[in-house]
Amino acid sequence: MSDVHAVRRARLRDRYAAAGNDAALVSRPANVRYLAGGAPPGAVLLLGPYDDDTLLCPPAPGHGGEDGHAPVDEQLRRTAVPGSGDPAVAAAGLLTPSAAVRLAVEEHHLTVARHRAIGAVAPALRLTDLGCAVEQQRIVKDEEEIACLRIAAEIADHALGELLESILVGRTERHLALELERRLVDHGADGPAFPTVVATGPHSGRPGHRPSDRRVEEGDFLSVGLGADYRGYRCLIGRTFVIGTSPADWQIELYELVFAAQRAGREGLVPGAGYRDVDRATRYPLEAAGHGEGLAPRTGHGVGLEIDEDPQLAPAAMGKLDARVPVTVGPGVHLPGRGGVRIDDTLVVRPEADGGPELLTITTKELLAL
Amino acid sequence: MSDVHAVRRARLRDRYAAAGNDAALVSRPANVRYLAGGAPPGAVLLLGPYDDDTLLCPPAPGHGGEDGHAPVDEQLRRTAVPGSGDPAVAAAGLLTPSAAVRLAVEEHHLTVARHRAIGAVAPALRLTDLGCAVEQQRIVKDEEEIACLRIAAEIADHALGELLESILVGRTERHLALELERRLVDHGADGPAFPTVVATGPHSGRPGHRPSDRRVEEGDFLSVGLGADYRGYRCLIGRTFVIGTSPADWQIELYELVFAAQRAGREGLVPGAGYRDVDRATRYPLEAAGHGEGLAPRTGHGVGLEIDEDPQLAPAAMGKLDARVPVTVGPGVHLPGRGGVRIDDTLVVRPEADGGPELLTITTKELLAL
Repeated sequence: MSDVHAVRRARLRDRYAAAGNDAALVSRPANVRYLAGGAPPGAVLLLGPYDDDTLLCPPAPGHGGEDGHAPVDEQLRRTAVPGSGDPAVAAAGLLTPSAAVRLAVEEHHLTVARHRAIGAVAPALRLTDLGCAVEQQRIVKDEEEIACLRIAAEIADHALGELLESILVGRTERHLALELERRLVDHGADGPAFPTVVATGPHSGRPGHRPSDRRVEEGDFLSVGLGADYRGYRCLIGRTFVIGTSPADWQIELYELVFAAQRAGREGLVPGAGYRDVDRATRYPLEAAGHGEGLAPRTGHGVGLEIDEDPQLAPAAMGKLDARVPVTVGPGVHLPGRGGVRIDDTLVVRPEADGGPELLTITTKELLAL
Repeated sequence: MSDVHAVRRARLRDRYAAAGNDAALVSRPANVRYLAGGAPPGAVLLLGPYDDDTLLCPPAPGHGGEDGHAPVDEQLRRTAVPGSGDPAVAAAGLLTPSAAVRLAVEEHHLTVARHRAIGAVAPALRLTDLGCAVEQQRIVKDEEEIACLRIAAEIADHALGELLESILVGRTERHLALELERRLVDHGADGPAFPTVVATGPHSGRPGHRPSDRRVEEGDFLSVGLGADYRGYRCLIGRTFVIGTSPADWQIELYELVFAAQRAGREGLVPGAGYRDVDRATRYPLEAAGHGEGLAPRTGHGVGLEIDEDPQLAPAAMGKLDARVPVTVGPGVHLPGRGGVRIDDTLVVRPEADGGPELLTITTKELLAL
């Protein structure tokens, strides 16, 4: 994998150099990992000003521990920062001998206080903004990255499939969520990609619901959102089921509506499609049915080293999809007091010649009565 | 609880007003929670410029979901920020009509990019630094907060105690960690306070070890670090056990050494003791035994709404302990290739007249052979 990371760093170097910078300091953890392979929490990556790139690691691992699952690129020089020093400040210190270096930093990640400390340690530095250059570079994945996402999705499908075979009535949201997370790890995940969502009855379909002590009852909608972290890559699957043998008419209608919206979004995933057009395709059927009011501000987003990254599938999003961009398509409708439906897939944009969008999360989207 | 939060806000108001500020914008999540009760992820709190305090909430819950366990103080005005707006920028927007307001912000939390966006939306504002005023205010806990920590510690003790009754040989670090986290929730935790550490054999005693697929073997040291989150309050317990009936001599010696160091640190927890003196008391026995080289840069730290907060018990830390400050005391020694010992407690500093330090994590610290 080392060459992969060196190539990524070379691309970034071209970009920051073209903007007139001599060096770049990457501090956002997912960006560091993307460019360096694994890295302990808090590590920062200094690129340039010559060909020497340095990973600066903090001295004391936090409670999160170090990332044991990804080896750091061996082409990188690795430095441990002594004491309780800030690796970003130490990185600037490495540059002090070089007069008047232009150093691009991630202003959307560095705090005002850290930025000031960097300026103070190396007054000759000219600090500029790297912006979201690394995030932009991360949008289109290579096939190795997609392979990790595919495995992450398989793991989530397995965990969900096993849950569906067990007795659900009477169990709490909280316990079902924990069981799903245990099953993710059983099947090889490094951990859940995000806190698992289990929402029953009136909670179902609520975006970002946090599992409670409510128990599954006959007649409930049960909506579940989970994902696996596999070698740092994170996917997302969301499904809604009905508990008991005979769904109510409103449940069937609502389910079919959300399913149709989600399908429309998936079908819009072609290279060149505008982010906002995919959102519009997903959103329109829900708005037309009178559910425009409570809809989430976006209907999908990119995934990768973070569970929520660019692109954003939202009404005001600018930009167009490329091949090899993995995104979620996940509309939902929540009727306060009654519950709702959410259906979420992770897919990879592919040209039509290659068969169109590649569905990673393959658990059925029929309305299952459990 | 509402009065509690109003009193906290009034104290902060006195402090920022004394520094010449008209208003304060609190963005660091634990600080928002401390002053507002519960708050959804990404919410910010605007205090002043008059008596009206406003909690500004982002529109879309992230994958973490909203914090369902703590009700927002009802005395607070609550505003939802539309679209994909930044609540911190929206807060500044509320102040635009007031000319020349001095607004103190958390420069150690706000990114450079957000800080600039705040300045751009309200050019008449004068932005100053609130510094760590809220963090400082959080160091000494009230008895309600300590009650939450006490329950969190009881939960962790229970979870650990149950694990010790089960068969351990042959199970992986990863599965033991998951089981501990499930038991935490079974006993009423809102979740783990931090990712649970289980380290066996050569991994044992390594700070921040991330559970792997290594299985417990006869003769291993087994070190475990876990904590519960109870109503937002987080504690920490760390213990080391030996697997099998007859610990080796080096294991007994190393255990006794770390135990003596940890006891010395605990005994140093009196109101008025310097942070560095407690660290020194803990660190000295380990250094004297020749283990100075690989020691962590600190031997304990505060806990509360975050698992790692002020004070820091470290050689260069400035400041003195007060009563009602909860801290961890957790020295450890790791011998590369062989393993090691870590013993960690959460205690509350109390005057000697009240019986001295209150030990929250009461699981035995005898060397148990399991």
